[in-house]
Amino acid sequence: MEKQRIAIDMDEVLADVIAKFEALYKKNHPKEALRQQQDGEEFYAILPDHISGDFRKHIYEKGFFRDLEVIKDSQRVVKELSEKYDVFIVSAAMEFRNSLEDKVDWLADHFPFIPWQRTIFCGLKIVNVDIMIDDRSRNFTAFNGRPLLFTSPHNKLITEFERVDTWEEVAAKLL
Amino acid sequence: MEKQRIAIDMDEVLADVIAKFEALYKKNHPKEALRQQQDGEEFYAILPDHISGDFRKHIYEKGFFRDLEVIKDSQRVVKELSEKYDVFIVSAAMEFRNSLEDKVDWLADHFPFIPWQRTIFCGLKIVNVDIMIDDRSRNFTAFNGRPLLFTSPHNKLITEFERVDTWEEVAAKLL
Repeated sequence: MEKQRIAIDMDEVLADVIAKFEALYKKNHPKEALRQQQDGEEFYAILPDHISGDFRKHIYEKGFFRDLEVIKDSQRVVKELSEKYDVFIVSAAMEFRNSLEDKVDWLADHFPFIPWQRTIFCGLKIVNVDIMIDDRSRNFTAFNGRPLLFTSPHNKLITEFERVDTWEEVAAKLL
Repeated sequence: MEKQRIAIDMDEVLADVIAKFEALYKKNHPKEALRQQQDGEEFYAILPDHISGDFRKHIYEKGFFRDLEVIKDSQRVVKELSEKYDVFIVSAAMEFRNSLEDKVDWLADHFPFIPWQRTIFCGLKIVNVDIMIDDRSRNFTAFNGRPLLFTSPHNKLITEFERVDTWEEVAAKLL
């Protein structure tokens, strides 16, 4: 029997973008306070108005995605998943031309067991898979399989999808 | 009604890789003759043995994919297709890490009407589309839609797929 296919997102699912945002913010604005993201709020929304617009530029810079921290337990669980399922990494990386090489290199460092054949950089996620793990519910709208919404502050108010808070929870559901 | 989706390959469908190979070969080996590719034969197969292995390295170099010629009529026909269909560019670019930025920039130059949302760099083409235009029949094996095999010397002996020799033929079939 063919294995089921899983599509796994990168940012805020495998790679901790918000921790990088916070570190950059503290470095560039050591005197400004940063409040917590509220449920349903994007990171940019918590920045002071005079900083927010400029801050978003970081994500277009070379290197931004190269040194992101790995989300807790993701390496171990994705490795175990990749034995039972056909695991694809599916990132909407095409929005950020300068992220492409960084993301390839980051994956090679932290998820070396994912071959290039199973890596997909796209915009719209029109992938033919059975399960999709993603923090952006917009990626589920055209998807007919089983969506798993990976918790991130910005998506905490969304109730219509099956949710996973941690990679331990993904393991409990899928392994 | 939703538009039908078309996945269009890049190399040897939109971008003339073989012309670049030939130009590189003539530049690097001005005294060696190059015979024509026979039906069913890959470009590498026509190179003298002592050159073939080394020659393949060009495809991994930065810049290789940046200045490819555009296949005849493809710009006009893809533009017209993109009005009637949801057109996605789907390239197995992940095999070549150094091609990613070159391919993005090449598309921006020659197919500026294709947004990042409709550009996909992958390995296995597990895309959910209705029609796929590709020169590699291996990309059709897991595909349930309508495959159109775009003629290239290497695929001329393949008979089991609907074939298009030119972009004019694609237009005649799909427009």
